[in-house]
Amino acid sequence: MVSLKEIADALLENDYFYILTHRYPDGDTLGSAAALLRALNKMGKHAKVLCNDEIAEKFEYLFDCVKDEDFSPKFIISVDVADLDLLGEKLSVYKDRIDICIDHHESNSILAKQCYVDPKAAATAEIIYDLIELLNVDIDIPTASCIYTGISTDTGCFKYSNTTSKTHKIAARLLDIGVDAYKINKVMFDTKSKARIELEKLVMDTLEFAFDDRCALICITSDMIEKSKVDDSEVEGFASIPICIDGVLVGITVREKENGLYKVSVRTGKEIQANLICEHFGGGGHKAAAGCSIKGQLDEVKKKILSVCIDRIKESV
Amino acid sequence: MVSLKEIADALLENDYFYILTHRYPDGDTLGSAAALLRALNKMGKHAKVLCNDEIAEKFEYLFDCVKDEDFSPKFIISVDVADLDLLGEKLSVYKDRIDICIDHHESNSILAKQCYVDPKAAATAEIIYDLIELLNVDIDIPTASCIYTGISTDTGCFKYSNTTSKTHKIAARLLDIGVDAYKINKVMFDTKSKARIELEKLVMDTLEFAFDDRCALICITSDMIEKSKVDDSEVEGFASIPICIDGVLVGITVREKENGLYKVSVRTGKEIQANLICEHFGGGGHKAAAGCSIKGQLDEVKKKILSVCIDRIKESV
Repeated sequence: MVSLKEIADALLENDYFYILTHRYPDGDTLGSAAALLRALNKMGKHAKVLCNDEIAEKFEYLFDCVKDEDFSPKFIISVDVADLDLLGEKLSVYKDRIDICIDHHESNSILAKQCYVDPKAAATAEIIYDLIELLNVDIDIPTASCIYTGISTDTGCFKYSNTTSKTHKIAARLLDIGVDAYKINKVMFDTKSKARIELEKLVMDTLEFAFDDRCALICITSDMIEKSKVDDSEVEGFASIPICIDGVLVGITVREKENGLYKVSVRTGKEIQANLICEHFGGGGHKAAAGCSIKGQLDEVKKKILSVCIDRIKESV
Repeated sequence: MVSLKEIADALLENDYFYILTHRYPDGDTLGSAAALLRALNKMGKHAKVLCNDEIAEKFEYLFDCVKDEDFSPKFIISVDVADLDLLGEKLSVYKDRIDICIDHHESNSILAKQCYVDPKAAATAEIIYDLIELLNVDIDIPTASCIYTGISTDTGCFKYSNTTSKTHKIAARLLDIGVDAYKINKVMFDTKSKARIELEKLVMDTLEFAFDDRCALICITSDMIEKSKVDDSEVEGFASIPICIDGVLVGITVREKENGLYKVSVRTGKEIQANLICEHFGGGGHKAAAGCSIKGQLDEVKKKILSVCIDRIKESV
């Protein structure tokens, strides 16, 4: 790993940057990339942000007034990309050419020429903030808004355990610069389409409990998605619902995918390890949040995942 | 209005404090009161927090290890109480005896001997933080947790527009002291009883739209509360649901009270003023959040409030 100063020096010495983001792009990968692009432009350099997937409308403001240039890259940076597979197919052409990798995921496995990975950073956008400060580039309101978006979305608006004193200090600075945090958070956390509300109602009707309410499970089927006419980008955030119920130790969300495959998200409290449950089905993740895929009929899938849950619950007692 | 220094001096000079909180107590009134009590105790003074209503279990940690003393008050302080009526019946005996009133509500109407009201403070707990600093009393982890609770709950975890750069600076300091912010926020925002989930399902089934989806309305009836077996303290936070729906300009929540009376909460976007809608029915509040009471059958009540909404929507076009 190199120092952030070395990253700053490399940016100063080079030009014609491609900034790669991860697929299923979120506020942190896009906010970090857009902030870095804006800083590089201010330094008189050429930069372009690339993503495998289409960027959701709610993130478009990150790129307001950014000019879309056409050029061949001379220097390639990845931001918030933990693994080469997360670049997606379209960006896979760059996977052996990454000059700088900037990330905050402990599991980062990218072998770039220069790597800066800080798992203590709540968001990659925190690192980008430090980097821009180090470059002595003025942080204007649009750039500050990009950084704020990354930080706010990756911390669940300062709610998750990754939030540190430094996170709040940076937020204070960004608000001083003039970020409209209320507006950003309203779009990121408090805006739902009518279709999404419809889907939530259908999903909540599937809520079931097992093992004396220590497990809660919800299902999202393709039928529900079709019936509610929800956009694919809005089918997120459900996995946190069952674990929020008082007394629940394991919260499970089963989502139907193609060809009889179900994606299972597991969230747990301190007592149980979610990754151990998911590893049983070839999946993985963290202690409190993990996932796996299970094939079969919905009822079978539910039975399979619940049977592993009860084993873990019994062990934990 | 006096300065915070004068408030600090009054606290230094007096003893045997009663700290009054508002009825339907929330995180800010209780967090502010508990933090102030802890600081006064550290100064070797006697203090007691009083509330008209029972304190919900989730707030009990605010008073951990606080000794409950029995004494007659020589000095009375109200915190986060905007109006004498909000003291409730049990505390109304003190309403002409308030020595110090500390609050952040612009509408504050209490005539205490010394008043310190700062509407720029996101929470009364922010003022209490400054006050304890001014008193030069060490802020320990339990005290910091009380202040954090007040700030976090009154800003919707740094999401509402009252959040300032100062709010984040104080939060940074509280995290440095050692507050377990994740744990507090999990209890305050991400824990729901099974009964509450049941109530949410019933309430969401009442969701209706009017005027080309520019109004969204939900109802909470006594039947639903009974059927879901929810605790009264859990029937909160519904008012923010309808206004979160994309395109909705006015979000209305109608809650049945006793004797054919309905409490109506109105939330609006920038285009419409919620207080103007509620003033029509003798209520009031802020531009974006207001409330009123309307008597009648549920259908009549809905018709009445919607008819004022459409007038305001027409005016705003």
